[in-house]
Amino acid sequence: MSLIVQKFGGSSVANTERIMRVAGIITDTYKAGNDVVVVLSAQGDTTDDLIEKAQELNPNPSKREMDMLLANGEQISISLMAMAIESMGFPVISLTGWQVGMKTDSNYGGARIRKVEAERVQAELAKRKIVLVAGFQGINKYDDVTTLGRGGSDTSAVALAVALKADLCQIFTDVDGVYTADPRIVPDAKKLDEITCDEMLELASLGAQVLHNRSVEMAKRYNVELEVLSSFDRNPKPGTKIKEAAKMEKMYISGVAKDKNVVRISLINLKDIPGMAFKIFSALAQKKVNVDIILQSIGRDGLKDISFTVDKGNRDLALAVLNDNKDIIGMEDVKVSEDVCKLSIVGAGMINNPGVAATMFEALASAGINIQMISTSEIKISVLIAEADGDRALKAVHEKFFS
Amino acid sequence: MSLIVQKFGGSSVANTERIMRVAGIITDTYKAGNDVVVVLSAQGDTTDDLIEKAQELNPNPSKREMDMLLANGEQISISLMAMAIESMGFPVISLTGWQVGMKTDSNYGGARIRKVEAERVQAELAKRKIVLVAGFQGINKYDDVTTLGRGGSDTSAVALAVALKADLCQIFTDVDGVYTADPRIVPDAKKLDEITCDEMLELASLGAQVLHNRSVEMAKRYNVELEVLSSFDRNPKPGTKIKEAAKMEKMYISGVAKDKNVVRISLINLKDIPGMAFKIFSALAQKKVNVDIILQSIGRDGLKDISFTVDKGNRDLALAVLNDNKDIIGMEDVKVSEDVCKLSIVGAGMINNPGVAATMFEALASAGINIQMISTSEIKISVLIAEADGDRALKAVHEKFFS
Repeated sequence: MSLIVQKFGGSSVANTERIMRVAGIITDTYKAGNDVVVVLSAQGDTTDDLIEKAQELNPNPSKREMDMLLANGEQISISLMAMAIESMGFPVISLTGWQVGMKTDSNYGGARIRKVEAERVQAELAKRKIVLVAGFQGINKYDDVTTLGRGGSDTSAVALAVALKADLCQIFTDVDGVYTADPRIVPDAKKLDEITCDEMLELASLGAQVLHNRSVEMAKRYNVELEVLSSFDRNPKPGTKIKEAAKMEKMYISGVAKDKNVVRISLINLKDIPGMAFKIFSALAQKKVNVDIILQSIGRDGLKDISFTVDKGNRDLALAVLNDNKDIIGMEDVKVSEDVCKLSIVGAGMINNPGVAATMFEALASAGINIQMISTSEIKISVLIAEADGDRALKAVHEKFFS
Repeated sequence: MSLIVQKFGGSSVANTERIMRVAGIITDTYKAGNDVVVVLSAQGDTTDDLIEKAQELNPNPSKREMDMLLANGEQISISLMAMAIESMGFPVISLTGWQVGMKTDSNYGGARIRKVEAERVQAELAKRKIVLVAGFQGINKYDDVTTLGRGGSDTSAVALAVALKADLCQIFTDVDGVYTADPRIVPDAKKLDEITCDEMLELASLGAQVLHNRSVEMAKRYNVELEVLSSFDRNPKPGTKIKEAAKMEKMYISGVAKDKNVVRISLINLKDIPGMAFKIFSALAQKKVNVDIILQSIGRDGLKDISFTVDKGNRDLALAVLNDNKDIIGMEDVKVSEDVCKLSIVGAGMINNPGVAATMFEALASAGINIQMISTSEIKISVLIAEADGDRALKAVHEKFFS
């Protein structure tokens, strides 16, 4: 007998039919002799309705009241799911964030979990009940309701798995696992049986929309075994396991990902003097602009160029920071390229397999694709290319490594 | 400066326009220098939506999960109202049943309030905040969410008024006060400035759908001053005050009410022996059938008839009890009349004014209306008449006493 935490997202509980299917998955897990704790998100339309009502009353409500409002979405999901499971004849109880002791800080709308006081959940499991928990929400030290922000329900699930010392934390989503590339672009992409947390973190940050980084980071820190699998199969097939000790003998590259959410900013004709990069990037860091790839040209005639990439959402802020500091930086011109994308290969096996970068560049060269910038880490190689080349590049690199 | 508890029902917060109007009433009360605690019900359509979703999943869900589901309705109302009040620039905070320490027993769906631990509310009032409280809900000793059943939000408001020692508890509803008769039937019915709790209790039980008895009983026991007034006026006129020490010099009858929710059951040809009434009414009481008016005929030839009235909802149960006990009771026949109604006059001044009953009977006789049964108490006289005569009887009696 194992203790399994399962998490189902908003699309998994969107209507009566889906709730009943998920209730079947949950009760199958229980019937197999496991202790089962289930974390649920809000039904998507419930959240939309609530936000719409709020907007009509106040376009700029306080975050505290917004959290009070939105937390209802998950509470509705858990009570409805409890009724569905009751109708199938199984013992079940639903619990809100405050009832499961999900203690957070007071950062409304994006609260961090401080600790989980899981005695109530343990008591209900001891009675052999299926325990349904409202994801995405907690309470702060004032007993006020908070929400956890993006990826919140995944994080709720992992935090509960940590507190309960669960054997496995299953994240049910609308895909049946993690693939070597986006299957919508690369039809012969393969599903991975296992992947390390670090690889998953790199893939997630590269736009593989499977799991939120926050939950993977927590799983890595506390050594929780995750599994991504599909909630749309009544009898889900094994998905992809994410664990620190994933097997990596067979495949040294775990995936190829494309990220369109990127802008290149170039500062032209800077003075080629020491400390220039520090001035630029410390000014950006102070305003919390996250810089990704950096390229500095070789100085010539006492001048040089520096280019870097940021998320599209940080474009305007980055330009404002540069403009505020233009007297200190002293660049002649700032150029912005929107029509770029980032292509990355990720693999923990890369460290022990020299020549991976060369193989990737060869694939791109054969396809006639120009590389604008390059960035490497121990388990990742990223290149910036023209956005128009993105899908072709993804296919070419995937074919080189996986066929 | 006073501490005022205000309660607004579901129709008062049904849409954006009404929420903004109620927000105006609340903030006017606050601007006048009062401490303001507001109890809100769920938006009507929210509750309907939730019940419909539940029914689709499970026609017979547990009451515990139903309470968990329905409690969201009030939590949504308070957070939306908080946003509306924020938009007007006033300090405000919303609190759920568990956050205001509304401790109840575990009778899900119809919980009784045990105590209110109002420290949190007091702390927020001390910060000069408008405090919005989710009505209809509480928590039991296991920290599970309960709902209070019918009249729950009125009861929440009175319980808070007791705990906070409020100066006044205002119940905003869709009528602007308590009238001497239903204004839809009797156009010249008058609004009462004041009424005693006992009179209000009699009127409420007679079908004057203004306040639930539970809240009036609590107000009477703890000496809370109530006021019924309309939430549909942006600047509400003074309503009707309900208090123990209401003035009653001027008017000794406070109202006339008609109740159609009544059935007459007659047991024909019972043996005229001692203990017969006891047998019948103890059997009914054991099954919690509430009997109202009782009429026993004079015995003749060793036989008699007994008639009594019950609420329409108790009709089938009452008949089943009689059938189960027919060997003990030994009646020849049971007759049921549905086409009856009860007309009552209520007034605390009645005790000191003899001849009230005679005046009422005179009014009915003049209108040619036959009286089937009569029941009197210290502050009430009720008669059972044909349903077809109901409106005419109401007008005739009202005219006799109030014009």
